[in-house]
Amino acid sequence: MALTEFDLIHQFFSDMGASDHVLLGVGDDAAIIDTTDGWVLHVSTDTLTEGVHFLPDCAAPDIAYRAVMTAASDLAAMGAAPRAMVLAISLPEPDTTWLEAFCTGLRDASADARLPLVGGDTTRGPLVITVTVMGETPAGQCLLRSGAAPGDRLCVSGTLGDAAAGLSLLQGELVASDPANAAFLTARFLRPTARIGLGESLRMSATAAIDISDGLIADSTHLARKSGVALHIDHRQLPRSTAFCAVVEPSQQLHYLLSGGDDYELLFTLPQSTALPEGCTEIGRVMAGSGVSCDGMPTGKGYDHFGHR
Amino acid sequence: MALTEFDLIHQFFSDMGASDHVLLGVGDDAAIIDTTDGWVLHVSTDTLTEGVHFLPDCAAPDIAYRAVMTAASDLAAMGAAPRAMVLAISLPEPDTTWLEAFCTGLRDASADARLPLVGGDTTRGPLVITVTVMGETPAGQCLLRSGAAPGDRLCVSGTLGDAAAGLSLLQGELVASDPANAAFLTARFLRPTARIGLGESLRMSATAAIDISDGLIADSTHLARKSGVALHIDHRQLPRSTAFCAVVEPSQQLHYLLSGGDDYELLFTLPQSTALPEGCTEIGRVMAGSGVSCDGMPTGKGYDHFGHR
Repeated sequence: MALTEFDLIHQFFSDMGASDHVLLGVGDDAAIIDTTDGWVLHVSTDTLTEGVHFLPDCAAPDIAYRAVMTAASDLAAMGAAPRAMVLAISLPEPDTTWLEAFCTGLRDASADARLPLVGGDTTRGPLVITVTVMGETPAGQCLLRSGAAPGDRLCVSGTLGDAAAGLSLLQGELVASDPANAAFLTARFLRPTARIGLGESLRMSATAAIDISDGLIADSTHLARKSGVALHIDHRQLPRSTAFCAVVEPSQQLHYLLSGGDDYELLFTLPQSTALPEGCTEIGRVMAGSGVSCDGMPTGKGYDHFGHR
Repeated sequence: MALTEFDLIHQFFSDMGASDHVLLGVGDDAAIIDTTDGWVLHVSTDTLTEGVHFLPDCAAPDIAYRAVMTAASDLAAMGAAPRAMVLAISLPEPDTTWLEAFCTGLRDASADARLPLVGGDTTRGPLVITVTVMGETPAGQCLLRSGAAPGDRLCVSGTLGDAAAGLSLLQGELVASDPANAAFLTARFLRPTARIGLGESLRMSATAAIDISDGLIADSTHLARKSGVALHIDHRQLPRSTAFCAVVEPSQQLHYLLSGGDDYELLFTLPQSTALPEGCTEIGRVMAGSGVSCDGMPTGKGYDHFGHR
């Protein structure tokens, strides 16, 4: 059932679809992507819902940017080269001004994540955005959550806790005296960067990888379980941004570092002999066993409430 | 941001993912699909929203079945062999009974459309379902909306108007004296069949194709425009089911046949010399020109209000 007034919307979405891999973009029953002989296809889908995944007063460009990047981050975690995305959006009514703003963020993210938009569906309804991303890796070269082996180095890209601190700033739970620090941290929440290039570069070296969406401990736990290993984290090595250290009280930092989600950095394991990629930090070690510990103490649900906050 | 109680839901979705093409299903950052050397990938996404695409009292299995089939129908219209689907669902709260019912319909559709479910995202929010489907065709062999040439036969699969009549029955606008007719017609609306096998078989013969989701005239108009041709329809040849003829007054039939959507039959064009596939009907002819006419009269917006209803 097409909504005629929504047809107009397609014009907004039809100019981000160019790439060598896109044989046919928006406008037929399906888009056509040129896949690579000897490679395999990676697919992931993510939904953002108003009030759950973004604040009701969130700017339209940031909603779009974040929707694409959270999905693209799953490709990064697989080591996949981005190929294309499709977007499904339901919105209460066709609001040209809002959609134009939404599309500026969508266009930025499409370029930054190298994900041409090849299809979409626009329907009337509550504001819900679903992005499905597709990428490719050479067969047998992808990064899985499984594969970490005892002795491997546990590593993370970028800095941790920034996005959670940014969200706390937006919600008034933290205050930044320096506006530049506030801008940096809120941008880390509103405009996360999927570590696409890093993921691709880790394809041949990392033994396991996951993106940090739910928080370091939560996502480490997924990786440990899938790999059948224990992960030991040394909290002193956790990478912190200057802005983070300026805004978050030292006594609260560990809580943000371990439990703050939404950073979309990559957590990965490297064989002992492999050099650390630029911009990454070794934060611990893979050991035989199970579970995740920090400074020798087991972590679990509610870890941060037991004296570390 | 994971909702812990929603993690349970994944168990419902994790047993429909098997196929030779699925290298990795639900459970990592992305699913992995084995694509075929020399083939190209087709992708389409469709969203169903409560109150817009299905009635609020629609049974959960039917919602799931319809969501998959409407998306799968786009693959059929491209002539694509189905490979996999991902499902994003937002729902107000995790309701095990509803989800179990939803999954029975999902499982049926997954089997019927040959679309293993390889990934999903479940979030809290208003009931919105987005299905993204992927399929493959040999490079250069897909069915597009463009390609119809003057002289081609205009053909349609199955029968028309059934789904619209079924919806009218559900909404009390039509009455069926024979319950078997009511059951047939409402099932045509609630449980449409994507013409996957037919689409695949037309890959080498049809010059253009589209699925009929918005109604014969609306979708014929898309095909005519994309192909740069005129389409002439002979209303006497439009295929009607026995149930349709029994339930819909003769004076109203043309309205349902021309404007009723949701049948998800294929509309396609065949070279004059090509035999009509079984279960299909020739309903007209491709001519030089533009637009769609029925019985020699041009059709346009509101065609059915001008004396044909």
